[in-house]
Amino acid sequence: MLDLIAPLVVPNESKIVLISSDGLGGLPRPETGKSELETARIPNLDRLASASACGLLRHVAPGITPGSGPGHLGLFGYDPLRYLVGRGVLEALGIEFDLRAGDVAARGNFCTVDAAGLITDRRAGRIPTEVCVRLTERLKAIRLPGVEVFVEPVKEHRFVLVLRGPGLGGRLSETDPQALGKPPLPVRALDTDSARSADLVNAFIEQARPLLADAAPANMVLLRGFDGVPALPRFPEVFGLRAAAIAAYPMYRGLAKVVGMDVLKTGGTFADEIITLRQHWQSYDFFFVHYKDTDKAGEDGDFDAKVAALERLDGFIPEIEALRPDVLVVSGDHATPSILAAHGWQPVPVLLQSRYAGADPVTAFNERACAAGTLGTLPAQHLMPLVMANALRLTKFGA
Amino acid sequence: MLDLIAPLVVPNESKIVLISSDGLGGLPRPETGKSELETARIPNLDRLASASACGLLRHVAPGITPGSGPGHLGLFGYDPLRYLVGRGVLEALGIEFDLRAGDVAARGNFCTVDAAGLITDRRAGRIPTEVCVRLTERLKAIRLPGVEVFVEPVKEHRFVLVLRGPGLGGRLSETDPQALGKPPLPVRALDTDSARSADLVNAFIEQARPLLADAAPANMVLLRGFDGVPALPRFPEVFGLRAAAIAAYPMYRGLAKVVGMDVLKTGGTFADEIITLRQHWQSYDFFFVHYKDTDKAGEDGDFDAKVAALERLDGFIPEIEALRPDVLVVSGDHATPSILAAHGWQPVPVLLQSRYAGADPVTAFNERACAAGTLGTLPAQHLMPLVMANALRLTKFGA
Repeated sequence: MLDLIAPLVVPNESKIVLISSDGLGGLPRPETGKSELETARIPNLDRLASASACGLLRHVAPGITPGSGPGHLGLFGYDPLRYLVGRGVLEALGIEFDLRAGDVAARGNFCTVDAAGLITDRRAGRIPTEVCVRLTERLKAIRLPGVEVFVEPVKEHRFVLVLRGPGLGGRLSETDPQALGKPPLPVRALDTDSARSADLVNAFIEQARPLLADAAPANMVLLRGFDGVPALPRFPEVFGLRAAAIAAYPMYRGLAKVVGMDVLKTGGTFADEIITLRQHWQSYDFFFVHYKDTDKAGEDGDFDAKVAALERLDGFIPEIEALRPDVLVVSGDHATPSILAAHGWQPVPVLLQSRYAGADPVTAFNERACAAGTLGTLPAQHLMPLVMANALRLTKFGA
Repeated sequence: MLDLIAPLVVPNESKIVLISSDGLGGLPRPETGKSELETARIPNLDRLASASACGLLRHVAPGITPGSGPGHLGLFGYDPLRYLVGRGVLEALGIEFDLRAGDVAARGNFCTVDAAGLITDRRAGRIPTEVCVRLTERLKAIRLPGVEVFVEPVKEHRFVLVLRGPGLGGRLSETDPQALGKPPLPVRALDTDSARSADLVNAFIEQARPLLADAAPANMVLLRGFDGVPALPRFPEVFGLRAAAIAAYPMYRGLAKVVGMDVLKTGGTFADEIITLRQHWQSYDFFFVHYKDTDKAGEDGDFDAKVAALERLDGFIPEIEALRPDVLVVSGDHATPSILAAHGWQPVPVLLQSRYAGADPVTAFNERACAAGTLGTLPAQHLMPLVMANALRLTKFGA
């Protein structure tokens, strides 16, 4: 898809806003038969839907529940089955670690081992974050041949390990045996490109052991979720867009950074994000604006809170419209139905407004209404080509 | 798709029932403009549709009429264009021959040849089945080096030949010249893996000739529809389901067996099948229940009989619901419109009921109503991932 798009891109002055309301889609509450979107009073989104082409986005495949990585990569135009972003990478992005292509990242846990080296607590009694900070300082002393080593605290017993250097593969087994009374496992390479990484990580662990010997309950480390940073095609180059990301949560800033967007400094609320959008309006062509509250409420299984989060989002729509974007898209990275209290596999409503989108009969922004929209049920990675077309930024294919 | 699903599977206690109403879909009778499903009184299926996500299943591709093999493989989650089950294999499954991976099967005909060895009747005057049984007994005496040879009667002039042994390819040309006055053709290998099979089959034919010399009109054999048993990923392992098949007709039992389901002993009617379902409810997670009558009536071109068959099926729905499956799916392996009196290419109504399916506006179970359902028109092999998701048996993809 990206290979098809890139040669067709033509520049112009149009402005594009993509609002990703995290976990947007939902399911009917059994008592009322209405979903969160159907329950919420969202007059602005409904009005926008009336003037838009509507549909449903499917981010991975029918029945497959997307994580936040694949969900957003899909929105950005990438095939989430081809471009994978693993857990170690997401954890590093979540603390705004400056990850680079070729880095290998892992999630680390401090753990407790007994005199025989057997694990007695896989989370080191959830040590306070300040202890985690102190102990990662010790681990930063570790040197490995030919690579840079980064150890950064996250929260409680969790930290991030990043190796940076040439020729590092990220396909490594975990050291966590997922059971007590066993020793941490050595890392094994899961492909031939990762053999050197495995040796380096095992050397890291051997150096960590004496450094932590007196630090019980955090006297050992476990490493998992190893992953290399994927060499993704750069969004600004593929689409010829000066692209900015506005997101209060670090992980989403990180995902945008991985695809090459400029990540704008913003405050902690969506109101702050809209201010940031207004301030930078002239400097960019494309704005990815992330709204977290919908996912948070859904994950908590709090139907009413999700309804309220949708109503708050709705209240910001006129401010965004006032900027007069040429293309305005509202969708999400996955469903988070409150009755599931987790990410869901259900396709996610999408509306696309532009002078050329062709409004369809849909007059409400919710799962059932959008199912009848002219966009149909669309693989998420097909959204960006539609956005580009509506921005008149694609020339025709073939003569 | 199967490679995507398998690593996401998580176990739980949920129960899944998949009703395959063979040849379910139909077409309007010109006199009334209503299809069989639209004509039938099916209050239970309509009520179920109202509480379900609905759609249409396309088993192979637009305009392609599925055989029963591809139709059911699609329902079971397999891409029917990738996993082919040939005619020889289906014929063997149809007589409940215990086919194993690596076997090569062919459809055999007894035929008549004259003194010069030229074919005068390709079906040996449709000899009575008991003659077929006697003559296959003779052919069972044939021994071939390094393989087991099975010859089993089917009906009238038809029999099945199966070779079992290591390194047998199943891509062989037919011996039937499809014309009178010509000799049976020698078998040729259509790929290099099948060279040994070709030699063995030609040796079989040479040994058969003298054994049948005095048996005119059945004094020679023709072999066609050669096929190896495909090494299909095993359904219970891919989906992590204890899977049972309940089908009165041998071929459907055989198809279920080929994908590794347990085939339950059952009686000859759908009522018997439902009793079997109830008896084994605790022992399995997934039940494939096959209903043949809809296809039979459609193949006969008997619109009213198909309507009646649908109404009978409808009457069993409450008994199935009483078992309280977590996921209940009703669909079919292909359409068999009565006005075609044959399998059709039309997509087939599907309903999927679960707590998390998200009921859509569809309130009737028929072709036109289901076309407006939220499942859309879905490749059949995407149904199983949806079923698994609705059973909460899939974890999310990516972090």
